[in-house]
Amino acid sequence: MNDPNSHAFVNGRFYMNPEHVTADDFFRSGLNMPGNASNQLGVAGVQANVNTLPGLNTLGISSSRLDYAPYALNAPHTNPRASEILVVVEGTLYVGFITSTSGPNMKNKLFSKILHPGDVFVFPIGLIHFQFNVRKTNAVAITRFNSQNAGYNIIANALFGSHPSINDDILAKAFQVDKKIVDYIQSQYDRVGLLLDNYDKPNSN
Amino acid sequence: MNDPNSHAFVNGRFYMNPEHVTADDFFRSGLNMPGNASNQLGVAGVQANVNTLPGLNTLGISSSRLDYAPYALNAPHTNPRASEILVVVEGTLYVGFITSTSGPNMKNKLFSKILHPGDVFVFPIGLIHFQFNVRKTNAVAITRFNSQNAGYNIIANALFGSHPSINDDILAKAFQVDKKIVDYIQSQYDRVGLLLDNYDKPNSN
Amino acid sequence: MNDPNSHAFVNGRFYMNPEHVTADDFFRSGLNMPGNASNQLGVAGVQANVNTLPGLNTLGISSSRLDYAPYALNAPHTNPRASEILVVVEGTLYVGFITSTSGPNMKNKLFSKILHPGDVFVFPIGLIHFQFNVRKTNAVAITRFNSQNAGYNIIANALFGSHPSINDDILAKAFQVDKKIVDYIQSQYDRVGLLLDNYDKPNSN
Amino acid sequence: MNDPNSHAFVNGRFYMNPEHVTADDFFRSGLNMPGNASNQLGVAGVQANVNTLPGLNTLGISSSRLDYAPYALNAPHTNPRASEILVVVEGTLYVGFITSTSGPNMKNKLFSKILHPGDVFVFPIGLIHFQFNVRKTNAVAITRFNSQNAGYNIIANALFGSHPSINDDILAKAFQVDKKIVDYIQSQYDRVGLLLDNYDKPNSN
Amino acid sequence: MNDPNSHAFVNGRFYMNPEHVTADDFFRSGLNMPGNASNQLGVAGVQANVNTLPGLNTLGISSSRLDYAPYALNAPHTNPRASEILVVVEGTLYVGFITSTSGPNMKNKLFSKILHPGDVFVFPIGLIHFQFNVRKTNAVAITRFNSQNAGYNIIANALFGSHPSINDDILAKAFQVDKKIVDYIQSQYDRVGLLLDNYDKPNSN
Amino acid sequence: MNDPNSHAFVNGRFYMNPEHVTADDFFRSGLNMPGNASNQLGVAGVQANVNTLPGLNTLGISSSRLDYAPYALNAPHTNPRASEILVVVEGTLYVGFITSTSGPNMKNKLFSKILHPGDVFVFPIGLIHFQFNVRKTNAVAITRFNSQNAGYNIIANALFGSHPSINDDILAKAFQVDKKIVDYIQSQYDRVGLLLDNYDKPNSN
Repeated sequence: MNDPNSHAFVNGRFYMNPEHVTADDFFRSGLNMPGNASNQLGVAGVQANVNTLPGLNTLGISSSRLDYAPYALNAPHTNPRASEILVVVEGTLYVGFITSTSGPNMKNKLFSKILHPGDVFVFPIGLIHFQFNVRKTNAVAITRFNSQNAGYNIIANALFGSHPSINDDILAKAFQVDKKIVDYIQSQYDRVGLLLDNYDKPNSN
Repeated sequence: MNDPNSHAFVNGRFYMNPEHVTADDFFRSGLNMPGNASNQLGVAGVQANVNTLPGLNTLGISSSRLDYAPYALNAPHTNPRASEILVVVEGTLYVGFITSTSGPNMKNKLFSKILHPGDVFVFPIGLIHFQFNVRKTNAVAITRFNSQNAGYNIIANALFGSHPSINDDILAKAFQVDKKIVDYIQSQYDRVGLLLDNYDKPNSN
Repeated sequence: MNDPNSHAFVNGRFYMNPEHVTADDFFRSGLNMPGNASNQLGVAGVQANVNTLPGLNTLGISSSRLDYAPYALNAPHTNPRASEILVVVEGTLYVGFITSTSGPNMKNKLFSKILHPGDVFVFPIGLIHFQFNVRKTNAVAITRFNSQNAGYNIIANALFGSHPSINDDILAKAFQVDKKIVDYIQSQYDRVGLLLDNYDKPNSN
Repeated sequence: MNDPNSHAFVNGRFYMNPEHVTADDFFRSGLNMPGNASNQLGVAGVQANVNTLPGLNTLGISSSRLDYAPYALNAPHTNPRASEILVVVEGTLYVGFITSTSGPNMKNKLFSKILHPGDVFVFPIGLIHFQFNVRKTNAVAITRFNSQNAGYNIIANALFGSHPSINDDILAKAFQVDKKIVDYIQSQYDRVGLLLDNYDKPNSN
Repeated sequence: MNDPNSHAFVNGRFYMNPEHVTADDFFRSGLNMPGNASNQLGVAGVQANVNTLPGLNTLGISSSRLDYAPYALNAPHTNPRASEILVVVEGTLYVGFITSTSGPNMKNKLFSKILHPGDVFVFPIGLIHFQFNVRKTNAVAITRFNSQNAGYNIIANALFGSHPSINDDILAKAFQVDKKIVDYIQSQYDRVGLLLDNYDKPNSN
Repeated sequence: MNDPNSHAFVNGRFYMNPEHVTADDFFRSGLNMPGNASNQLGVAGVQANVNTLPGLNTLGISSSRLDYAPYALNAPHTNPRASEILVVVEGTLYVGFITSTSGPNMKNKLFSKILHPGDVFVFPIGLIHFQFNVRKTNAVAITRFNSQNAGYNIIANALFGSHPSINDDILAKAFQVDKKIVDYIQSQYDRVGLLLDNYDKPNSN
């Protein structure tokens, strides 16, 4: 009934009858294999979330492996439904998040750090964050979310690559730039879409 | 102890001894007065959240009045910690949100609508959304959040107006544009900051 | 499957396949039109909750417009599943809530206030509260709840107008009055029921 | 710092340093002793909540023993912050709750039942409920809440015995009765207050 | 659809159409009757949880009656999804729980107490706890959980009586004992299984 | 004020004034360095939880690196306050969890699996689980929890190594073995305590 071709979904999906659950419902493989980072941002993710690991249903946790080509950028994005904790396995990443402006005396602040293998960094729920591979070698991170379906929302894709497109008068005003620039940026985003299409399956599939 | 000049805060702040609480702790005035929209986006907010209405502490709800000058844009933003429900009181707004890319077969989709007085629209937690005044007259909306401190995060400000600035190599790569364009956009955002400085106080203050 | 004529419901109802959701699932109109206040309490509500705005499902927020005839009373009631934040749009309301008796040294306290347009007041979850129009002109308020289905429970209706009726020995003892008085009060409540019948649809329907 | 004579409280109170916690922080005695039911409703409660059993802090559960004199009434009340599950230990109770009016086609419904020893009944969060001892012998129940501080709010006390009193015009309109009746009922409630004063301590104290 | 012979379950099960719910959906009987404690641990439970009292669905609370034969042990167990509050109705119980080792400077600590009728004790969520009848007479307790389905997990059964069995090399290493001892302990647990089979129904069934 | 030598703690600890927070509050290093596994179980953990990474406060997520010597066992344990998702980085682990006995027709079931690098496995909240290194080479895993302070509770330590000890009559009855065996097992557990003392700091400290 959670068949994507069906009209009716159930909140949190169906789960299996406990009599029929097996260990494989709590298992997936493939996080040792790099995702396909052959796209212009050079980042790929292999996810273990409720869509690829059904036993996570109702448990409120999920995981991803992230692969970064040299100088690759996991572009500024949000996870709308989860906080994230990332550990660097290989390479060197420059990471950061920007605070929102709620509360007295708070401006948008950038909190950033260079991370080396074994370093851990936290991205609080809903805030824009990024990781950038600052070396000419690959980098790998393992990251987790306190949601079974955290969401992944690349800001540039959402703003300039949505279907349908956001009116370019709105984006020009939002970014204080000429519409020609907006139209140019919008034209870039079909290809970045590749990253998203890859996001839910390991490279081996 | 929640004095912003103090180092130690308590999660959820202190609250008053029930013996000393009064009706005024559950009250604020001023949502009948337009906020100061004299900034280049032409939008202002007057908030009733835990920072301006202490009785909201622990209750998980807050409210804002939004004023839109002619052709004003409440620029694409997120509320990192709340879903939002907006009702138009006056004028005509074009509103929308963009879905994230979590789950199978999902692209960034724009869900948008023209709203007239009395129309209600919902913005799910964490998703980028905007409101645009499509008329040459003012517009007013009342909006609510299921958090006492929902957060307000203008995407363009966070990306191009943060303190310190995000490295322009990163933004150029993220938006697939030349660094000159990034540098130009970054130069715009001190003024948009005015909107944020205004956000926590009614015009009357 | 959430057809009220069906026996089987799903917690939180079904939601639509993300592939088939549209902007209209996050929209409703009609909060500019007064509800039908032609009942003896003189108050009507137009709700935007999960029953009338399906996109609210799982989002934990809802909204109502409240219309008050001159000297109308939104009788003492509770919202069993939500805190409420109300803003006065038009007119003058005398509002209040009564604390419960939990915790040391607490008695039932009345916290009340006269509200004018633009004033905001908070009613904490589960507590009895009321709004009274103290003028000979109409009043309007917009109110929100941190639940998609907050519940609305007029105390007098629940106690004296339930189906079936509460035994009048119990009510006489509860209110320390003669059963004749209870029987008289119980006889009033079929008509107050009109308010409830009206509560889920805008006047325009 | 949670001294009721202090102005500053901390949400959820302070808790002890784990190094200094003892088994007694998770313990209280006295639920074998009847509470003092010598008040005109004839019901008394002995509570084990966060105010009398500090180890409950943050655990979200609490308990009470209820004693009913012959023909005693635990008057219609709400627990604003918890659902309740009650088991009859001794005697015969007539119990019920009234649904609120949220959702399509729902009227205030009374769900009631005669309970004998060993019978269990559930009162959903926020709904008005009561227990009535229908025999000329004592009755005893043990009841639990899924909150460390559920709240206890006798409707008649809140409406007719609050401090200060609710304006009698409002109550007369709410109950559709003459103000003389309201004034008479209001005059009853100082004595019912005794029940509340007793509610937080066992009879032995 | 929550038929245990069906493959598809719904999180939190289905619930009834509000139009068809009756008081009996919030009711069960039998907690006055001792459970069948004729098993080698001498303890039996009669549960009122969502499996035996459907109205508990979504309410997050449940209850059990526990009967202890002379010198009976409710063996060390966890409730994986709830905190528990227990009150002794009859007899004398030695109870305790063991803290976990999270946080600085914390070792596994045993917090234990001798309980007499009317004594209340709290077992925090997820911690191993036990009750032991220290007298040659029966004991009875009423206990509650802040979950509609708290889970009940006897440690010895889980470790030595699972289906299939845990590899005895693992258990020998875990307990630092010879495999012969593990094999012997494993051989005990079919009979302790009786306690579990009895756990969901009152003796009268 | 969360100094473990202080008596007064605040739930969820104090947090820093947002004006004074820095990126280092969201950072820790050292997960690239194996923990000290020189204890008889041969497993060590390096934790990034709220005790070692203050920015996790209120975010509800944490992480650990686990190192396994050849044939090492992460003994059967529970995390009382979190679900866990584990990914194997190096080596081969035999892992499993045992279900509890809640719900109809459920026995304690062992769900187990051999995991290789890149394999992911889920351990639901509160259930007993273990990991065993089945090779003569080291193994490494990265694991995460949906709590900032998940707790770590080795069953054998809690039962046989608590302070003070659990009465050996109780353990003998629980495990259906002679008290001599219990006394012998209890004598083993001081050394296993080493694992716990190591659990909160990386090897480098």
